[in-house]
Amino acid sequence: MDFNAVLAEKARIIDQALDRYLPHETTPPGIIHQAIRYSALSGGKRLRPALVLGAAEAVGGSAENVITAACGIELIHCYSLVHDDLPAMDNDDLRRGKPTSHKVFGEAVAILAGDALLTLGFELLARAGTSAAVSPADGLRVIAEVAVAAGTEGMVGGQVMDIKSQEAGGSPELVAEIHQKKTAALFVASVRTGAILSGASGQQLAALSRYGKRLGLAFQITDDILDIAGDPSKTGKSTGGDARKRKLTYPGIFGLSAAREYAKKAVEDAVGALDSFGPSADFLRAAAQFILTRQF
Amino acid sequence: MDFNAVLAEKARIIDQALDRYLPHETTPPGIIHQAIRYSALSGGKRLRPALVLGAAEAVGGSAENVITAACGIELIHCYSLVHDDLPAMDNDDLRRGKPTSHKVFGEAVAILAGDALLTLGFELLARAGTSAAVSPADGLRVIAEVAVAAGTEGMVGGQVMDIKSQEAGGSPELVAEIHQKKTAALFVASVRTGAILSGASGQQLAALSRYGKRLGLAFQITDDILDIAGDPSKTGKSTGGDARKRKLTYPGIFGLSAAREYAKKAVEDAVGALDSFGPSADFLRAAAQFILTRQF
Repeated sequence: MDFNAVLAEKARIIDQALDRYLPHETTPPGIIHQAIRYSALSGGKRLRPALVLGAAEAVGGSAENVITAACGIELIHCYSLVHDDLPAMDNDDLRRGKPTSHKVFGEAVAILAGDALLTLGFELLARAGTSAAVSPADGLRVIAEVAVAAGTEGMVGGQVMDIKSQEAGGSPELVAEIHQKKTAALFVASVRTGAILSGASGQQLAALSRYGKRLGLAFQITDDILDIAGDPSKTGKSTGGDARKRKLTYPGIFGLSAAREYAKKAVEDAVGALDSFGPSADFLRAAAQFILTRQF
Repeated sequence: MDFNAVLAEKARIIDQALDRYLPHETTPPGIIHQAIRYSALSGGKRLRPALVLGAAEAVGGSAENVITAACGIELIHCYSLVHDDLPAMDNDDLRRGKPTSHKVFGEAVAILAGDALLTLGFELLARAGTSAAVSPADGLRVIAEVAVAAGTEGMVGGQVMDIKSQEAGGSPELVAEIHQKKTAALFVASVRTGAILSGASGQQLAALSRYGKRLGLAFQITDDILDIAGDPSKTGKSTGGDARKRKLTYPGIFGLSAAREYAKKAVEDAVGALDSFGPSADFLRAAAQFILTRQF
């Protein structure tokens, strides 16, 4: 499989759907819709929504049934980036090679744009559950699971620990927990969303959860490696930010080489979790390999 | 009806449920759970969740079926207060007589606490829809409606217009639209949530929507009147903030006396919208009268 080509095709479908779902820039109040579109349509990899589609595929579901939910999860991811970049948080000026939201629209609108992206994310998840091919009870289950993954047991909790770890210092256990909450939780929620809305069995869900958990860890480790050893022209952000901010990372604690080994092991585990699936899970397998070699 | 006593009893039930739903302060990361509890359990009037319960009552439903959703809506209201108070937004130091979240926990944690409250709000709405007495499809409908009311067509959009109106100047039409989005949208969503989850008819929903819309307008007008003529020992915040921030308000545009007349007319309309309901809507009627005389 030419993973980059397949991912690009999935990203194209997701971008088209997002463009349809997002309010137009001329709809008043225009500035908030401009800010929402600026951050949501800024050329991300669309890895999380692609995992929603990939998990649906893996259990025999269709992209059509889960595309709305995939967009909802991507908007929730986008909100977290906008808020993480704020001056009071990571205070980043660049994201995906462009000035961050608060640099363009000011802090107040950036905060509100994040709030609106999170809210619209849940609206799309609710709409996904009302599709004729989905059981409404499954739709509600997905919303509750994504909310838990995005809340203080997941992304928000991980971000708090990430900020506070600079004050507290850290251990290998702590960095693993931060990565789990900050990144892996939404990866798990992404594959589970695609699978649940496609009527997956409990066994399939358990396997996909293991996959998502290890994939999310690998993704965050390689993210931190790229922050040290990446090419800014490809990553769209300058290197060395984590060290300057004294963030807890695998390469920071264990060194680059050992961090690469951790990522490799996590990817092997992720692929191993898919053993009971046939070729329908090939996209998910290729996504795991991609994590190891990605340059952006 | 002794409205204050009935509201206090509803607030007690809501506070108890919130206390059960909110993560404990000792659950790590503790600081975010402290911040969430600080803002969510700070002695608000609980008017919006009480309206959820009141609307359920009005259409013959039970409090038990809607209490979880009522808590979800209250958390979404709380998130909006935490973010509105931020330095980049209204920059307020006091809320309900206590220092605002960012004053106590710092800006980063306050932003994240707001994010977590919004997320937990949707989690509770999803849980509300999975109750045995509720149809899952109605649960999804409520989530979508609350999301629209909280998003750029509602609260977020109103807040953006509120901030920008200071730059743009304003007209009576603009202030009406800001009030509609910033405040009335969530009032409408509150009564509709209670009614939908209780199996209300389309006719009942339409009447309750009219009620909520006019009630929300009256509430925002009296809020702005209290900002000028209120007693800080009762409102929990100092007066004159709106004028200092050059906010668009009814008393600012029309004067105190005319603003009081607008509020009175809106309350009459709200009560009139309930004509087809019997005594089961007495709480909603009394809530409308309370808006006119409230001192906090």
